[in-house]
Amino acid sequence: MKNVITISREFGSGGHTVGEQIAEKLGYKFYDKEIIEKIASESGLSQKYVNENAEYAPGTNIFSYGFVGRNALGESISDILWQAQCNVIKEIAQEGNCVIVGRCADYILKDKDNVLNVFIHADMDFRIDRIINNYGETNEKPEKRLITKDKKRKANYRYYTDQIWGQAQNYHITLDSSVIGIDKCSEIIIDIINNIS
Amino acid sequence: MKNVITISREFGSGGHTVGEQIAEKLGYKFYDKEIIEKIASESGLSQKYVNENAEYAPGTNIFSYGFVGRNALGESISDILWQAQCNVIKEIAQEGNCVIVGRCADYILKDKDNVLNVFIHADMDFRIDRIINNYGETNEKPEKRLITKDKKRKANYRYYTDQIWGQAQNYHITLDSSVIGIDKCSEIIIDIINNIS
Repeated sequence: MKNVITISREFGSGGHTVGEQIAEKLGYKFYDKEIIEKIASESGLSQKYVNENAEYAPGTNIFSYGFVGRNALGESISDILWQAQCNVIKEIAQEGNCVIVGRCADYILKDKDNVLNVFIHADMDFRIDRIINNYGETNEKPEKRLITKDKKRKANYRYYTDQIWGQAQNYHITLDSSVIGIDKCSEIIIDIINNIS
Repeated sequence: MKNVITISREFGSGGHTVGEQIAEKLGYKFYDKEIIEKIASESGLSQKYVNENAEYAPGTNIFSYGFVGRNALGESISDILWQAQCNVIKEIAQEGNCVIVGRCADYILKDKDNVLNVFIHADMDFRIDRIINNYGETNEKPEKRLITKDKKRKANYRYYTDQIWGQAQNYHITLDSSVIGIDKCSEIIIDIINNIS
């Protein structure tokens, strides 16, 4: 039985919404930004720092991986953040009945039989439209912003997991929300949860 | 409306069976080996040659890409085979109401709005079990055989499409048949075809 759903997603694809819809329909807990508070508490880092760094590889922030940032055990702030993230996600998954968005949760939980790993992506036009209309995005170059966001997520995923972000074999299901529709994506995932052993 | 379904698949994952089930339920034509005869006829190459080379990159067969194999236009046998494959797949798709398994059909038809691209994969144990039980595979090292087959398909896909085989963004849906089940995979795809505009 699968009672933990991880959702990885391209920025603007609607993966967050899919996660919320699934959690609501199944009566599961929903973790996205909610997880930041827990990681901050576990690591002793500020919520602001966790929020800005939890999905980005060390190389994208020079202060997070330099020698000056290391503690007595030689751990960088990035190492501490990653360890806290692993602990928090494993604790949440242990309780079951939850949806976790982002933060390499698919990789962190890859040996657990009760986890369904999902990846949501969408074409560029769909995503541009969503970030402008839904998030009130005012950036003049939304496409550039989307590409940069995806690149950072991809680099972070590669750094910590040594796997390729968005490679089908790392997920049980991947869906193009721009063709299938956000509501239908949620419906398909709920159907899988309710019908596989 | 989507009335052409392409199925790319890991060897042993059941992608062929998923394709057959979908075609039967929707009353669509089914093309897998059936396509070889058409490519042979289009290219003037033998069915045996097409069968042995249509899913493998030029580098895997030294005779197919050498200078000696080129015609007066400088085309290698591989180039001729690829061109014939593109023509045949586009002709089939033009007629609509069909399922096409393998042969980079997702890439060849990537600009067509009426095409749904699917990728089916599965874990190693599931695939080993299937090739032994369903195909009477007697090789002593089925895992090695599976890895070799996948590597060849991956190399061929990369050579002709410059894309990564199994990268979620190249497909509208990817499914792990070892977790979701072959019948359920077919059911999900049929549901998508019947319910998206």
